[in-house]
Order: sequence, then C-alpha cells, then structure tokens
Amino acid sequence: MFAFLITNHSAAVHLPLTLLLVFGTAKLLAEACERLGQPGIVGEILAGILLGPGILNWVQPDQVLSAIAQLGVMFLLFRVGLEIRASELFSVGGTALVVAASGVALPFLAGWGLMSALGTGSVESIFVGTAMVATSVGITAQVLAAKGLLGEISSRVILAAAVIDDVLGLLVLAVVTSFAQNRVDIPSLAATALLASIFTFVVAKFGTRTMRHLLPRVEQKLSVNEAQFNLALIALFALSVLAVYVGVAAIVGAFLAGLAFSETVNRRVKDLAHGITELLVPFFLVDIGLQLNLADFADRTVWLLAIALTVIAVLTKALGCGLAAAHLGPKDAVRVGIGMIPRGEVGMVVAQIGLAMGIIEKRVFGVIVFMAVVSTLVVPPLLKFAFRGVERPIVEEEFTLA
Amino acid sequence: MFAFLITNHSAAVHLPLTLLLVFGTAKLLAEACERLGQPGIVGEILAGILLGPGILNWVQPDQVLSAIAQLGVMFLLFRVGLEIRASELFSVGGTALVVAASGVALPFLAGWGLMSALGTGSVESIFVGTAMVATSVGITAQVLAAKGLLGEISSRVILAAAVIDDVLGLLVLAVVTSFAQNRVDIPSLAATALLASIFTFVVAKFGTRTMRHLLPRVEQKLSVNEAQFNLALIALFALSVLAVYVGVAAIVGAFLAGLAFSETVNRRVKDLAHGITELLVPFFLVDIGLQLNLADFADRTVWLLAIALTVIAVLTKALGCGLAAAHLGPKDAVRVGIGMIPRGEVGMVVAQIGLAMGIIEKRVFGVIVFMAVVSTLVVPPLLKFAFRGVERPIVEEEFTLA
Repeated sequence: MFAFLITNHSAAVHLPLTLLLVFGTAKLLAEACERLGQPGIVGEILAGILLGPGILNWVQPDQVLSAIAQLGVMFLLFRVGLEIRASELFSVGGTALVVAASGVALPFLAGWGLMSALGTGSVESIFVGTAMVATSVGITAQVLAAKGLLGEISSRVILAAAVIDDVLGLLVLAVVTSFAQNRVDIPSLAATALLASIFTFVVAKFGTRTMRHLLPRVEQKLSVNEAQFNLALIALFALSVLAVYVGVAAIVGAFLAGLAFSETVNRRVKDLAHGITELLVPFFLVDIGLQLNLADFADRTVWLLAIALTVIAVLTKALGCGLAAAHLGPKDAVRVGIGMIPRGEVGMVVAQIGLAMGIIEKRVFGVIVFMAVVSTLVVPPLLKFAFRGVERPIVEEEFTLA
Repeated sequence: MFAFLITNHSAAVHLPLTLLLVFGTAKLLAEACERLGQPGIVGEILAGILLGPGILNWVQPDQVLSAIAQLGVMFLLFRVGLEIRASELFSVGGTALVVAASGVALPFLAGWGLMSALGTGSVESIFVGTAMVATSVGITAQVLAAKGLLGEISSRVILAAAVIDDVLGLLVLAVVTSFAQNRVDIPSLAATALLASIFTFVVAKFGTRTMRHLLPRVEQKLSVNEAQFNLALIALFALSVLAVYVGVAAIVGAFLAGLAFSETVNRRVKDLAHGITELLVPFFLVDIGLQLNLADFADRTVWLLAIALTVIAVLTKALGCGLAAAHLGPKDAVRVGIGMIPRGEVGMVVAQIGLAMGIIEKRVFGVIVFMAVVSTLVVPPLLKFAFRGVERPIVEEEFTLA
C-alpha cells in the first residue's frame, strides 16, 4: 500500500515467516522420511539444505537462527542428560575414555595425512585433521532418544565418550592454533586441559548428590510458579556459561546440568523441557543443513576431495571408536562406532575458526562443511539398522524427540 | 590464555551468559516481588530496566534478544488462546467493540491534545497520540493466566477488545503515517481495514470448527512423534505470517491459532506449549524493561513531560474502556479499564516507526518508551487488587504463567 507500510511490514513478517519456513519444511520432510522408513532427523537436515543458499535460497543462515539453533542443541543435551543417571556414565567411564581417545586420534591423523599427501601446506593440513576430530553428540542423542534407546549400554558409552571427546577436541584445537601462531605454551595448554577435565569430572560426579540435597530445600522456600523448572533452567544456563569459561562447549555444561537434575526433578519438569526441545531442535537441525551450499562445488576436484574426506571421516571414526569398544561384543562395538560418526556443527565451528584465522582457504572450508553435514546425514539410518530389534515401542508420555 | 582463544571464547559465551543474566535476574526479581505481595511479572520487567543500558549495562537490547522476545509473546498469546473458547469471545463481542473504540479514541485525543498544548508540531503531536492508542494484551493476559482468571467475563472482554484494538490501532497508524507523508488514500486505507477485520473475524469464527474437523483426520495419517503439537505449531506460525500480511500484529495471529485449537487439542499439547512460555516469556518482559534508558532523562522538563504523558495514558485508557464496560457493573468495569492500560511493546513499536520516519525527536521517543514501560508496570498490582477475592488457588498441573 504505502512504501513505508510495506517496508515496515516486511521487517515484521521476517521472523514469523522464517519460523514457518524452517519449522514447517523440517516437519514436512521429517514426515516424508518416516514414511520411507528413515529417521525424521534426516529430513530435518535435508530441509536446511533445501531452504538454504545452495538450492531455494528462501532462508539465509543469520545471527538469530544461529542463536535459536544453539539454544536448541543446549536444550537437547539438557533433555538427554535428564534421562540418564551419572552413575551409569561412570560405570562405562574406562571404555568411554579409550573410545574417545581412539576416535580423536585416527580421524586427526587421517585428515592430516590425506591433505599432506595432496600437497596442502602443513598448517592447513593439521587444521583439516582437527576439524575431523570432534563428534556432534546432538545428532546421535536425538536418534537414540527418539527410539527410546538411551538406556542401552552402547548409548551410555557414546554419551560419555562424546563428552570426553569434547575435552580432547578442545585440547587439539588449542595445540593446533598455538602451533599455527608459532607460540606453543605447554604449561598453559596443560592448565586448560586440566581445568576442563576437572570441571567435567566434578560436576558429573557430585552434581546429582548436590541437587538431591539442595533442590527440595530451595524449592520449598520459593513463591514463584514452576519453581523446580525455573531452578533447573537457571542451572542449565549457569553450567553452560561455566563450561565455556573452562574451555569446553556450552552443550557439555547443558548435558551436565541435565545429569545433575535427572534423579531429583519430577515428570512435569521433563514434560516442560520436552516442549522446548520439540520447538527448538528442528532449528538446530535445519541450521546444520543451511551451512551447506552446494553451489560452491562447481569444480570436480572439489567434489572428489569432499567425498574422499567424508569417506575417511566416517570410516576412521567408526573404526577408531568401534575397535576401542570391541570388548563389549560385536553388536555394541558397531553401535558405538556408528554413534560417534556425526561431526555436525562441531566440525563446522573448527572450520569457521580456521577460515577466520586465514589458515584454511574458502574451498577447503566448503569441503569440511560437506564432510560435517554428510557424516551427520548417514548416521541416523545406520543407527536404526544397528539397533534393529532392540527398538522400544514409543509411548506418547515418554521422552521422544524428532 | 591465547588472544585467539579468548576472543573466540567471549563470542561463545555471549549467548549462554545473556540467557543466564536475563532469565536468572528475571526470576530473582520475580521471587522478590512475589514475597512483597506483588505479581512476579513486575519483577521481570524491572530486571530489564536494571540490566539495561541505563543502570548496570550488562545486557544490551539486540536482534537476538528481540527475536526471542517476539517468539515469547507469540507463544504467550497462543497459550492464552488455547485456554479460551472462541464462542466465549463472540458472546462479549459487542461490549468489546465499544470498549476497544472508546479506549482508542480517548488516549489518542488526549495525547494529541497535550502535545499540541505544549506547542509541539501538529504531525509529531498526532504521532504521540497514536503511540498512546494500542493496548499490549500480553501483560494483562500473563497476569490473568497466572491467577487463573481467564474464565472471568471481564477477562474475556479484555482479550476480545485487545484484538479489536489492534485492528483499530493499525488503522490509526496507517491514517497518521499517510497524513504525515501527505498522501492520504482513502480507498486503500479502507481496503486495509476491511482485510484485517475480515481475517480476524473469519479465523476467530470458523477456526475452531475447522480444526475440530481437520485435526483428527490429519493427525491419524502422520508418522512423526507429537504430531498434534507439531501441527499446532505450524498453524501458529502460519497464522502469525498471515496476520502480518493482512496488516495486524503477529501476536493476533498467534492468539487466533490458540483459539482455533483450544477445543481440539489434548492436555499434553498445552503442557508442551507451557514449557515454551515458561522459558520465553521472561525474555519478552525483560526486553520491555531493556528499552527504558533512564540516563536519557537528564532534563527536568523531560521528566515532567514523561510523567504527565504516562498519567494521561493510564487515566484515559482506564476511563475510556471502563466507561464503555459500565453496563457489566462497577467491579467488572474497573477490571476491564485496568486490564486495557498496558502499552508495553506496542507503544514502543509506534515510537520506533515515528523516530525512523523523522517525525518524532529522540527526546519524545524516550518519553513514549517511559509511558509504555510505566503504564505496563502499574497494571499487575492494580489488577491483583481489582480481582481480589476471585483469585483461584493454583494447581501445579493447571495453566499458570509468571
């Protein structure tokens, strides 16, 4: 009507329209995947690729979407933590440690080796290796939760290993960036590693006991509605902040918060948190897909490199983690190997840092994003296959995601 | 440690830290207010003023917070809609129409009159009048819902009148901006008004019936988990988009979506949506407080103007709406009058448009924000007083906000 009203109106419509496109397309393709016998999560990531700059270009990754996606993965890990007893993680701690270490070493060496063999500079090669290290536990957690499999021993190994993996990944990144900047400072690297390990261990070990003691006392003194839920959210945000300060990812803090509350909070807190993950997790998944711009892959050599790197990323992680879990028996070893494959948003964050520091070139950045997205996409169907037979029928009231 | 890690780390901590500060402070001050016998919502708005640029300057209003706040108020209105039958709104439609019209006319004329009397230019005066028009139904809805009062006749009049008020507010804004741009186009103004009215009326009138018919059929064909909830969210986003396209606020669409589903969805959908409002509504409330920068009020004349405008805004709205509801009896008339007072984010949006168009000066913008925030802050305690005695004891499982 009036130029002014139209301008204003397009600003006002931007947020609801983005919400509709992202959420609607994610659920539409999730439904399509479910009907084809595939996990819905695959459809939600594909929705991001479809909507993104490479194909339809209806939605561009931006600050707001990225913040909603981050909030989504924080709540996803919090929600997964709420379903798990810390003691169950510690009982598989030894195995998880070996799985994590082996699953970090193999992909790192393979990525570095491949790039060096192709004649890439040494710093860039090492950085590509680093981007292949970290597992994105969100994807696997989502699949396991959606199928009611969080109680399986292999699920516990995967979750514990993914947390340790994050600490190791941080260390590798710190070493590599200090190496790239020619100022390796062993004492402060060691201090970072120690601080991150102590934080994770202490919160996991004593969080549950503390909350079991503290929560009922604090709660009964409060007048606000839904006091238990509000306290849990504050702990979730506080531990996420602390996690970042000590050097690990915010989602590790979110997971630890869920773990600390898992034996204390009532059903209602889990239901309320579940509403939040139902809304936000699709934004996390779509945001992963949005990062992949297939238009960047004009060149055939780029395609070949992307495919080679992805195959290596998938195989080395599965092999490294699977072999380390071999004593659990072949079935569980395969499940652990597959569950650790997805690189998701974690690999992309490393790639973004490398790009910002001028260490990796734009072309290689695109290749890493491809590896991160595709290694994530292949996992849900593989997991479904690896867990066939143990899948539990899902009850509406239970924790089900996707 | 390393300059790079610190930089990266401060970027990574920004989101969780903001979430912790906003949510934690909001809940802390809400608890303090509840203990002083005041509604918690007052504390949450005060948290925004405290954290904002005027006092602590720990949190700055930005794109991400504003998006989370918008999402929050959309879900708030959706959640309120879910508790109300459309037929209950239509049964008070006549009263609501008179209440809305009277509550638009009086503040508009008073704001215009005051500014003109002070010698302000005619276009700027008219714009200030426009900023005094629209009621922010979110605040009142939050208080009524928190106290279990959505079933009261005065609550229904307030909600219906607030929706009509939004349509009228749009019309006033369209007329005033076209007048400011010297191109009044009566036919297209009439077309906008008609379109907005038809959309609101049709969705409110036929939404419930359509959903009652459609939802069970669609739902049983779907394979995704939580199909009913996901369908409701898609409808929520779709109606919000449509609302903006026809010219009303996104929250009107969100409210209509809730209304359409209120008689069809099960308890679980309401619980899941409730988890989302518990998380997001504090961001909406804090964001209102963040807009008020008391440091802008260096001058005594600005203070006087702000106080005068606020008193007029409160009195004319209460009087206009209260008198129009007089036939409901004195108690309900007072409740309706008070419930329509808050200007909240709606007044601020008009002020921002005026500032962007160069119609109102920065000083007057600050005054309007003051009026919007203070008119919002006074309402919860007044409502609590007006509804004393009818307040229902709150059961955890029920719909309770704040």
